[in-house]
Amino acid sequence: MALVVQKYGGTSVADLDRIRHVADRVAAGRALGNDLVVVVSAMAGETNRLLGLAHQISKTPDMREMDSLASTGEQVSAALVAMTIQALGGKAKSLLGHQVRITTDNAFTKARIHNIDNSKLLATVQGGDIAVVAGFQGIDADGNITTLGRGGSDTTAVAIAAAINADVCEIYTDVDGVYTTDPNICPAARKIERISYEEMLELASLGAKVLQIRSVEVAMKYGVPVHVRTSFSDKPGTMVVGEEGLEAVVVAGLAYDKGEAKVQLVGVSDRPGVVAKIFSLLAEKNVSVDMIIQSPSRGGGNSTDVTFTVAKTDLARVTDLIESQAKEFGATVEYDPDIVKVSVVGLGMRSHAGVAAKVFGLLAGEGINIQAISTSEIKISCIVAAKYTELAIRTLHEGLGLDKSTVVEQ
Amino acid sequence: MALVVQKYGGTSVADLDRIRHVADRVAAGRALGNDLVVVVSAMAGETNRLLGLAHQISKTPDMREMDSLASTGEQVSAALVAMTIQALGGKAKSLLGHQVRITTDNAFTKARIHNIDNSKLLATVQGGDIAVVAGFQGIDADGNITTLGRGGSDTTAVAIAAAINADVCEIYTDVDGVYTTDPNICPAARKIERISYEEMLELASLGAKVLQIRSVEVAMKYGVPVHVRTSFSDKPGTMVVGEEGLEAVVVAGLAYDKGEAKVQLVGVSDRPGVVAKIFSLLAEKNVSVDMIIQSPSRGGGNSTDVTFTVAKTDLARVTDLIESQAKEFGATVEYDPDIVKVSVVGLGMRSHAGVAAKVFGLLAGEGINIQAISTSEIKISCIVAAKYTELAIRTLHEGLGLDKSTVVEQ
Repeated sequence: MALVVQKYGGTSVADLDRIRHVADRVAAGRALGNDLVVVVSAMAGETNRLLGLAHQISKTPDMREMDSLASTGEQVSAALVAMTIQALGGKAKSLLGHQVRITTDNAFTKARIHNIDNSKLLATVQGGDIAVVAGFQGIDADGNITTLGRGGSDTTAVAIAAAINADVCEIYTDVDGVYTTDPNICPAARKIERISYEEMLELASLGAKVLQIRSVEVAMKYGVPVHVRTSFSDKPGTMVVGEEGLEAVVVAGLAYDKGEAKVQLVGVSDRPGVVAKIFSLLAEKNVSVDMIIQSPSRGGGNSTDVTFTVAKTDLARVTDLIESQAKEFGATVEYDPDIVKVSVVGLGMRSHAGVAAKVFGLLAGEGINIQAISTSEIKISCIVAAKYTELAIRTLHEGLGLDKSTVVEQ
Repeated sequence: MALVVQKYGGTSVADLDRIRHVADRVAAGRALGNDLVVVVSAMAGETNRLLGLAHQISKTPDMREMDSLASTGEQVSAALVAMTIQALGGKAKSLLGHQVRITTDNAFTKARIHNIDNSKLLATVQGGDIAVVAGFQGIDADGNITTLGRGGSDTTAVAIAAAINADVCEIYTDVDGVYTTDPNICPAARKIERISYEEMLELASLGAKVLQIRSVEVAMKYGVPVHVRTSFSDKPGTMVVGEEGLEAVVVAGLAYDKGEAKVQLVGVSDRPGVVAKIFSLLAEKNVSVDMIIQSPSRGGGNSTDVTFTVAKTDLARVTDLIESQAKEFGATVEYDPDIVKVSVVGLGMRSHAGVAAKVFGLLAGEGINIQAISTSEIKISCIVAAKYTELAIRTLHEGLGLDKSTVVEQ
């Protein structure tokens, strides 16, 4: 008999038929003798409907009220799922953020969990009920309702699993696991059986959408085994676990992210402090800069070119700033939104030095020019023209042997 | 400067346009220098939509889950109203049942308020915010969400007004006050300027729908002045107040209720205990019997006829019981659902003995047969055939002088 947390996303509770399917699955888990905590998202589309109402009222609605509004989506799902389990003969009780006592900071719309009181949850399951918890929501120290940001129900589920020391946290989603890369652009993509927290975190950060980044951080911090799987079948999905239990592979997966734009300042006067000034001004505006490259200017002379990438969503907000700075430094500005960041992730790269060279060689072999590179211990990211996205991913997927399982001895 | 509670019903917050209208009205109240607590219902139709989902899942959904589900309707309205007030430049904060700490018993779907903690409400208005409270909801001692039953937001508003010692509780509704009778069937009906709690309670109990009965009880208990008015204009409506401040009228208003059915047991053996047995069996089934008349049987002999009325909604549930009892007592059963209870209410009836005679005379004058009568200190109710509803109401309205204001000296 195990203590299991199951999380069902918006498509899994999209309507009463899907909810019935969830209740069947929950009943099956219960029939195995497991104690269950079920975390649910809002019915697909509901959060957008509610936020749409808010944005009809104001372009900048109050964030405290946004959270009180948006949290009703999960409250509705939780009650409906509990009722459906009961209608099938099971015992269930819905619990909201303030009933469990999931306390967070007061950063409305993107709050972080401070603490989860496990007493109500444990009392509920020990009383023979399935606890159906509304995901995505908590309360701050003053009792205000907060939400955890998009995908926050993943984090609710993993944090609850940590708080009650569950045996596993099952994340039910509309894909059947974590893939070596996006199967939509690379048909050879393979479902990964087991992946480490670190690799999952890099993949999630680099554009893979299957898990909220924060939920992976929490899982890693507390060592919660996470099982990413689909509610549409009984097939096992992908286990996200600590690296102790893993056979290391050189490359676990590939991610890509079209969300960045490239900015190039051409012909910046090469004086100390100039580059620092640009980036400190961007930081003041809360703009995260991802990659930065400084190189001798194409224009020659005593000047440099500075290239960096920012999120496309931030670009519009800061073009005035960038242009006034460029003018001050005697530079011209070029923008390129048509780029993609292609990333290779794998724990084995720590001990295998040749991966970067192989990646560059594979891309060069297809005539794909690399515009910028950044690396970490377990990741290599390259900026290339967006039109090469599919070609780059397929070339790397095959060239790095991801179409077969590539276990390495370390 | 006054402390005012305003309650807006579902039609007043039916869509974003109507909500904007509420926010304008609230802003106008604030501009007068008043401190405001605004209580809101769910957007019209929303509660039915949510309960409809529940009833698709089960004919008898769990009532705890029903309350958690249904309470989201008011939560959404409260957030949207607060946002709209803010968008118009005001300061506002939504508060839910668990945030105010409106504690109730645990009779889900029809809970009664035990206590309202006024500290959060007073802190909110003293901090310069308009408190926008989700009506209809509270929490029980275990933190479960409860609801107060249909029309419960009226009770929330009046109970809050009592808890914070407000100067007045304004109930905004889709009619502009309490009328001497239903204007839809009696065009001469007149808006009442002031009415006593006792009279309002009788009218509400006897079929007038303008205020939830429970809210009038709370207003009477705590002496909260209630102003029933419309949000569609600035006209004053009806003040519901203690009788001290009132000029007594003989008859304040007329109500009618088509919700009852008549049951007649013809030829019951006239033995002691027979009638008691019938009604104790009905009581065991939780069926409220309104009027009871026992008379010598039409069939003659040593038997009686027993006539009583029950709610139409209860009748179907107990016909088997009634018929088996009738058989046992050698009686036959006749049902008549086509009846109406017409009631005359007024404090002045305490000291004016002639009202009953006048009522009977007026009905007789139109050839309307009275099938049953019940009276209290301030009320006379008559059962007549349903087809006479309009005629009876119009005849009594004119004959008792309700078309003009009839102040009496006591």
